[in-house]
Amino acid sequence: MTYRVMGVDPGLTRCGLAVVDIEPNRRSTLVAVGVVGTEAGRSLDERLLVISEAVDTWLDLHKPEVLAVERVFSQLNVSTVMGTAQASGVVIVAAARRGIPVALHTPTEVKAAVTGNGQADKVAVTKMVTKILRLDTPPRPADAADALALAITHAWRRGVGQQGAAMSGGSLTPAQRLWAEAEARARRR
Amino acid sequence: MTYRVMGVDPGLTRCGLAVVDIEPNRRSTLVAVGVVGTEAGRSLDERLLVISEAVDTWLDLHKPEVLAVERVFSQLNVSTVMGTAQASGVVIVAAARRGIPVALHTPTEVKAAVTGNGQADKVAVTKMVTKILRLDTPPRPADAADALALAITHAWRRGVGQQGAAMSGGSLTPAQRLWAEAEARARRR
Repeated sequence: MTYRVMGVDPGLTRCGLAVVDIEPNRRSTLVAVGVVGTEAGRSLDERLLVISEAVDTWLDLHKPEVLAVERVFSQLNVSTVMGTAQASGVVIVAAARRGIPVALHTPTEVKAAVTGNGQADKVAVTKMVTKILRLDTPPRPADAADALALAITHAWRRGVGQQGAAMSGGSLTPAQRLWAEAEARARRR
Repeated sequence: MTYRVMGVDPGLTRCGLAVVDIEPNRRSTLVAVGVVGTEAGRSLDERLLVISEAVDTWLDLHKPEVLAVERVFSQLNVSTVMGTAQASGVVIVAAARRGIPVALHTPTEVKAAVTGNGQADKVAVTKMVTKILRLDTPPRPADAADALALAITHAWRRGVGQQGAAMSGGSLTPAQRLWAEAEARARRR
């Protein structure tokens, strides 16, 4: 049974959207990936509306079982953090209105889940996302890698495929093996 | 022609909602006032949904011409500011979805507009709101006074009633006179 997760990396200028299907054996497939947002010159209500409408459309089109959103902290980049928080509120309520559960994950949780290192840089995260999703080239747009990582992280932390991976034993694909190793590394922390 | 403004003082625990009708002669009438929100123990998506549904209901019921929302700053109370920003995003997009324009005002602007003093305390704001709206007692719930002040501030800053006030000359009501004086004091700053 495939588990479909939508990941959102909120932001007013660039809001990353991703949908990933995860099978019980952890095989993960990219369903959709994109970025929406507006230039800083537009009014706040217009900017939030663009994000709201995109998320509404994606939720209705892809019907994910859960929405994974990056948890926003007030310690981060002060000039944009309020807009990011406002965007995340709009994203979260779009799922809540449809009865779709929402999970929040910190950037450190996402990096640790995907690469095994909570301090990993963007390049490392993108590289692992590319491998996990069995893509020939890094996902485009590049800004959406975090949204994909969020979706993968949520499935991983929820334990999707743990039993499947254990049963499949040595028959893991290279990407699944990388993932299992990353998981083991993260557990040792 | 009456100008109807909805004011919202965003927050997850207590979100103040107010609707005020302002006539060209500045006579201001309370249409509705209330507070919505949830205890901190509920999940963020549930909390945002409660606010979203309340604002949707108020916008559809009262059909304001504009929504005035308090501008949130990251410098304020760090422990709650992210939730406040997320709530404000939900509130703003509810208006944007209906094509209702949104105006943001800072707490200092609101205090200056209503009392003539940008540093006024809650008691002074509530007192002036009570006078401006010609209420016998301070508005209840008390937390909603800021939402009322926001609605009044927006009409005032937009210039509603300026011509009417000029034409009515010495025939201002006591509340209108207080308002005109507050406006004059604020302009001198």
